[in-house]
Amino acid sequence: MYIEQIQTPADVKRLSPVELTALSGEIRTALLNKLSAHGGHFGPNFGMVEATVALHFVFDSPHDKIVFDVSHQSYVHKMLTGRKDAFLRPEAYDDVSGYSEPGESEHDFFVIGHTSTSVSLAGGLAKGRDLMGGRENIIAVIGDGSLGGGEAFEGLDYVAELGTNMIIVVNDNQMSIAENHGGLYRNLQELRESDGQCPCNFFKAMGLDYRYVKEGNNVEALIEAFAAVKDTRHPVVVHINTQKGKGYLPAEQHKEQWHYCAPFDVQTGMSAAASGGGKDYGTLTAEYLLDKMREDDRLVAITAGTPALIGFTPERRAKAGRQFVDVGIAEEHAVAMASGIAAAGAKPVFGVYSTFVQRAYDQLSQDLCINRNPAVLLVFGGSLSTMNDVTHLCLFDIPLISNIPNMVYLAPTGKDEYLAMLEWSLRQNEHPVAIRVPAGGTWDGGDTEKADYGRLNVYHTVRAGSEVAVLALGNLFALGEAVADRLKECCGVEATLINPRYTTGVDEALMRSLQENHRVVVTLEDGVLDGGFGEKIARFYGPTDMKVMNYGVRKEFIDRYDVQEVLRANRLTEEQIVADVENLL
Amino acid sequence: MYIEQIQTPADVKRLSPVELTALSGEIRTALLNKLSAHGGHFGPNFGMVEATVALHFVFDSPHDKIVFDVSHQSYVHKMLTGRKDAFLRPEAYDDVSGYSEPGESEHDFFVIGHTSTSVSLAGGLAKGRDLMGGRENIIAVIGDGSLGGGEAFEGLDYVAELGTNMIIVVNDNQMSIAENHGGLYRNLQELRESDGQCPCNFFKAMGLDYRYVKEGNNVEALIEAFAAVKDTRHPVVVHINTQKGKGYLPAEQHKEQWHYCAPFDVQTGMSAAASGGGKDYGTLTAEYLLDKMREDDRLVAITAGTPALIGFTPERRAKAGRQFVDVGIAEEHAVAMASGIAAAGAKPVFGVYSTFVQRAYDQLSQDLCINRNPAVLLVFGGSLSTMNDVTHLCLFDIPLISNIPNMVYLAPTGKDEYLAMLEWSLRQNEHPVAIRVPAGGTWDGGDTEKADYGRLNVYHTVRAGSEVAVLALGNLFALGEAVADRLKECCGVEATLINPRYTTGVDEALMRSLQENHRVVVTLEDGVLDGGFGEKIARFYGPTDMKVMNYGVRKEFIDRYDVQEVLRANRLTEEQIVADVENLL
Repeated sequence: MYIEQIQTPADVKRLSPVELTALSGEIRTALLNKLSAHGGHFGPNFGMVEATVALHFVFDSPHDKIVFDVSHQSYVHKMLTGRKDAFLRPEAYDDVSGYSEPGESEHDFFVIGHTSTSVSLAGGLAKGRDLMGGRENIIAVIGDGSLGGGEAFEGLDYVAELGTNMIIVVNDNQMSIAENHGGLYRNLQELRESDGQCPCNFFKAMGLDYRYVKEGNNVEALIEAFAAVKDTRHPVVVHINTQKGKGYLPAEQHKEQWHYCAPFDVQTGMSAAASGGGKDYGTLTAEYLLDKMREDDRLVAITAGTPALIGFTPERRAKAGRQFVDVGIAEEHAVAMASGIAAAGAKPVFGVYSTFVQRAYDQLSQDLCINRNPAVLLVFGGSLSTMNDVTHLCLFDIPLISNIPNMVYLAPTGKDEYLAMLEWSLRQNEHPVAIRVPAGGTWDGGDTEKADYGRLNVYHTVRAGSEVAVLALGNLFALGEAVADRLKECCGVEATLINPRYTTGVDEALMRSLQENHRVVVTLEDGVLDGGFGEKIARFYGPTDMKVMNYGVRKEFIDRYDVQEVLRANRLTEEQIVADVENLL
Repeated sequence: MYIEQIQTPADVKRLSPVELTALSGEIRTALLNKLSAHGGHFGPNFGMVEATVALHFVFDSPHDKIVFDVSHQSYVHKMLTGRKDAFLRPEAYDDVSGYSEPGESEHDFFVIGHTSTSVSLAGGLAKGRDLMGGRENIIAVIGDGSLGGGEAFEGLDYVAELGTNMIIVVNDNQMSIAENHGGLYRNLQELRESDGQCPCNFFKAMGLDYRYVKEGNNVEALIEAFAAVKDTRHPVVVHINTQKGKGYLPAEQHKEQWHYCAPFDVQTGMSAAASGGGKDYGTLTAEYLLDKMREDDRLVAITAGTPALIGFTPERRAKAGRQFVDVGIAEEHAVAMASGIAAAGAKPVFGVYSTFVQRAYDQLSQDLCINRNPAVLLVFGGSLSTMNDVTHLCLFDIPLISNIPNMVYLAPTGKDEYLAMLEWSLRQNEHPVAIRVPAGGTWDGGDTEKADYGRLNVYHTVRAGSEVAVLALGNLFALGEAVADRLKECCGVEATLINPRYTTGVDEALMRSLQENHRVVVTLEDGVLDGGFGEKIARFYGPTDMKVMNYGVRKEFIDRYDVQEVLRANRLTEEQIVADVENLL
């Protein structure tokens, strides 16, 4: 086995071409073993095996610096830079993150998890090198899907003017997570079909030198290309044609499905995870929207490169036809376009992860909310309990969205309320509306009372009581119920339980009425406290005698955390909250 | 005079080519009269006269829909769509905004003020039209400078796939606000030099049809080009070569200076505004940084298309050499690159307007703060008292930036403290640091005590007192002083006056100590209350007996407002605050 001899990239350089190809095979076997047991990004890594081997054969990491876009394809890089055990030894599988991580290795330069950032970050390393008088190679590795994001374009535009060493490896596997969308991809196809020779070349038009590698899974061809650009004194693109999922037939055949995998059976490719039963919110949403689309030609669902998130499988996309749009990984455009569609009188619904809606703050503010266009945003995963990589935290969407004027940001407590709010959002023509899709399964529960949500900032008092009022927002409604129950048991307090529904405003009349017979108001939110919902309540009651306790997650970047631990650390458990309230009473 | 006959675009269509050229001359005269008396965007409008006349001659607005990027060049459009009085009659000069405004006219479709949004917004109108079964032309007008923003790229990439009518007029005047930067601009040059014929064409590489107009200030040539693409059934770019500032010699010769003008003397071109005396914060900053650059090769100042903001005139840019970078209008790249430069060990300082830093939230969070790289951000204009167009409000930077973990966002109270904080930010290597550059002139004043700002969240008690504590953040320090003075005069209260210095954290020890002998805490901040600084203090004191009053601006989009009126409406005057405190005591 060659892989067991690789302690550092220097060990890669000692191998012959034949041995490097054998090494690539061993790497694939190790990836297959780990990912089938552990889950992870499958297709991106299987496609990048040879390119990563060739990069480390040619360049001298960490002196030369490789920056991986998204870095979900950096598993092979980790295996070649001292972290192979995390892929070879099951007990060490969790010793590394799924993304690049300077804390793990001097061969990683940034924590990266969002798309389209590598060229800018690497461009910064290059500019820094020039200021510091260095001579090392700076390499950005970016996938074709990531090229569609505006930040990548801004980066390419800049580095073309840099005038010094900068190498951009475009890993063209002809896929985003799903299929690519955008005019750019026709040019990539033309480049592939002309062996890189067609005169109209996007990269050259951007002022970049260009080189094409037809066999992007051939180590020797890649070594030749990388060696030719090593120590270049100007920016150059090396466009490599790779196969996503290469080496595992199910992944080669079903690229979208195998972008990321849960643990699976290697022989059959079947996921080992039992179906959880019940629909997820994506499926629920897609089925609801497809129903509505049949009645209403104006309705259009939008994704920015993550159609599965909103339940739009290839079959459902086909059913929706022109009423479904995937804009590629371009959240800024998605929001602005949604505003334009709504301005034209049609009904756009943009579904997006909490962590990725961060990419479109200015579009939410300027393109959408200043214009008060009635587009609908569905924010998925906003919770401590969803994605727990530091780059994918879903804790910041309430501060981000709720403080933009004119926006109505609703937080349903469960399935019924979600559907009622979605229904209203599509019917109304007054407001930009965002809905924080509940986290977890679509079981029954939550506050099932419907309302005319156009009467803004009217909270729902689910149980009227006295002494203590619990404002339990969205996902934490069940926790609020439990706290109220426990307060009765342990202290004989009949607490008021309120579903605030809105993150974007305070029900001042209700809050004032609570002052008559309440001493303590507790707010619960499934996200970061700073800039969030609870602080608005604290501000409202600031000049009064009301005691306010805000519960949520403290402002910090946390990584691969245990949910229960973080809940306890933030006193977000039923017992802790009740104890705190007892102390105050 | 033809202009006086133009009530609607239909009146433009009645004119002959010779008459249209005469009309263009009249429009320039009117613009010169208004702008010399009133100020406004000069160069962009003078360059777009003929193109706007031709657009309205060929297309049928408002059935056909024209969307202007930034819309600072839409004055001519306003003159031709029923709003000419606001340019011809001095008493009506303020009847229209400086940007497109649906509230003014059915010929405007969006409120627009930030760059690079027009293609996406118009793309939404086009998609909406297709869903609604319409046939109208959708036209986006975008300048070459705006093309460098990522959102514009995302929009172009999308519309290339639209497959239906969409016309993108690229107004290439070979300038951003200052000179253009980026590899793309070499291709625009090649296109101009080849009369649009060079085979490597950025727009064609993006999958768009393309047409070039060499004489972009010739009405007949423009009419021919627009007529040729009218009712196209696929997306097409019309690239027009225009002259920024055309028709007024000083503006033709000094394009950067004449992008925007204050009132001026038409004969000499000299600004009528007397020099205010004293430096502005841009000049102060540039001089400070240039001094530092002489000692430190690693220091680099960065702008995203607004070099004058940070004091870098063409002369100072030349002095700084490679230690100054203009990335074009690409805030996302600027932030990510700054993170990369800092990671390489150099010292980046990115100066940006409060309203435009909104364009880079995700880069601040992911590229910069998760990575804890010690880049420095200078946020200019953050205040109610700076730009008052609804699209350029500078009220949201505290909620936006201060709730990102790892960020240190400082709010100096005046010049001395600003320079001390800037000095510290450049010396330290631990934190991403943002500084809210004071608004207004660089007079002496504010809290002049310096500190080791690396001891995070240590506030400065400027006057120790009792009963009432005033936390006066940044620009509102003087108001805090005045409130404290007045409290003594009118109520005999010796209020404590505190300079919080940090928007990003609470000095919990100091806040606890206030509980010993204070009953009321007042917070003052020059920005929106929601998600801001004061709410953090309200949350801290929520469970206690302390009364907290947060002063700032309520969450709403306000336009062309009177500062004093808004201050009063938000009870942000000395008298109102003192009255409120008296009520509480």
